[in-house]
Amino acid sequence: MNYGDIYVVGIGPGDESQLTPAALKAIEYCDVVVGYKTYLDLIDYLLCDKTIVASSMRKERERCSQALEYALEGENVALISGGDPGIYGMAGLMLETVEQGGCDINVRIVPGITAANAAAALLGAPLMNDFAVISLSDLMTPWETIERRVRLAAEGDFVIALYNPASTKRRWQIETVRHIVMQYRTGDTPVGIVRNAVRQEQTVTITNLEEMLKYSIDMASVVIVGNSATYVRNGYMITPRGYHI
Amino acid sequence: MNYGDIYVVGIGPGDESQLTPAALKAIEYCDVVVGYKTYLDLIDYLLCDKTIVASSMRKERERCSQALEYALEGENVALISGGDPGIYGMAGLMLETVEQGGCDINVRIVPGITAANAAAALLGAPLMNDFAVISLSDLMTPWETIERRVRLAAEGDFVIALYNPASTKRRWQIETVRHIVMQYRTGDTPVGIVRNAVRQEQTVTITNLEEMLKYSIDMASVVIVGNSATYVRNGYMITPRGYHI
Repeated sequence: MNYGDIYVVGIGPGDESQLTPAALKAIEYCDVVVGYKTYLDLIDYLLCDKTIVASSMRKERERCSQALEYALEGENVALISGGDPGIYGMAGLMLETVEQGGCDINVRIVPGITAANAAAALLGAPLMNDFAVISLSDLMTPWETIERRVRLAAEGDFVIALYNPASTKRRWQIETVRHIVMQYRTGDTPVGIVRNAVRQEQTVTITNLEEMLKYSIDMASVVIVGNSATYVRNGYMITPRGYHI
Repeated sequence: MNYGDIYVVGIGPGDESQLTPAALKAIEYCDVVVGYKTYLDLIDYLLCDKTIVASSMRKERERCSQALEYALEGENVALISGGDPGIYGMAGLMLETVEQGGCDINVRIVPGITAANAAAALLGAPLMNDFAVISLSDLMTPWETIERRVRLAAEGDFVIALYNPASTKRRWQIETVRHIVMQYRTGDTPVGIVRNAVRQEQTVTITNLEEMLKYSIDMASVVIVGNSATYVRNGYMITPRGYHI
């Protein structure tokens, strides 16, 4: 029997307007769609006549195993990832699962608009110079490593995009990050907070290091901390590309 | 007279399959399309019946001024950016140009798939953990700043995505970067080089720090240097998300 293919598909922020034709085509092509329920709900208009395998949060390994099982049975499978599957998404775990299964399954990664890019576009142009992308979730990476990276990124005057900045149970990480960055940048350094980018209940906030903790920051947020040259004008957060024009 | 709007539109790597519906809609909506000739050629199928303002490389300021002039005359303008306009693209300069012109023009940024994301998808999953994005072009940022950032990113065990890594005239920067990173990572650290991602003449190379300079690296390339945990298996470059599964 021939195996099916696995497409790890990035759906971007969730709105149809930012789903690429390549992602659309991959989903349409597949018989089975596997994913976190919240993401599948965002693309439910594409899912009629499909075998749907929806799971709850933190079931990443299970989803990859399910995708692999269906592919081994000959089905083409779309494994759905929010944003870009290659950035804190499902691409790596899917490839690792196939590798550990020792099976010759064809896996293709279909990139999507990741949260930092979507958030940046809503804020103005905060990522126009060198930047670091750091996840504050210490489920997967030891906190000392994360803290060290924040410190080095701050020292290097990188713009810093923070994924998974806080949850209802987890707030001290973003407080610590702010404290570290304040050792290298002034309190008026612009900070952008985008929640639910390009989704219902989207909020876009431009604040600064001093004030940032007064605003709601949760798992659906991306926080972008400007570098020493970032400024705010006319409601836009702008990092100059380099030398001023 | 009413002013027109300016849309700074990211077309992604250049292939139609990775152009978002939002980008397509913005281009279709506008009367005037301004951009670097090479990017306009990639979307020529969208440009009939438009006023086209094409310019050569390095005319970024001119393009922004032209876009502003047309908007002031009441035309809706699409300013085209390769990849994502917010990442080494046209978003910042356009906002700065409007701000300095002191005019009340509505500017919207339409994000796109940036080169690092497109390249990562072709390589496997190299950006699955924290990463730094650095441009090696010292036209806009002093080389000492760039070098310092490379050093700090290497020290922090960030995966490093390098934009504008080299040109025909400019090769010593990538050699210097390799030399710096080699002080923190072993010679067998995986390196991915993607040229012309999702375009004609695309090449995808997986090599390592030791060997990387044997391959062609130019302005159409993105180089992704793995972190200490990145590995290569079955032709994929994979950075584990964190703790091993």
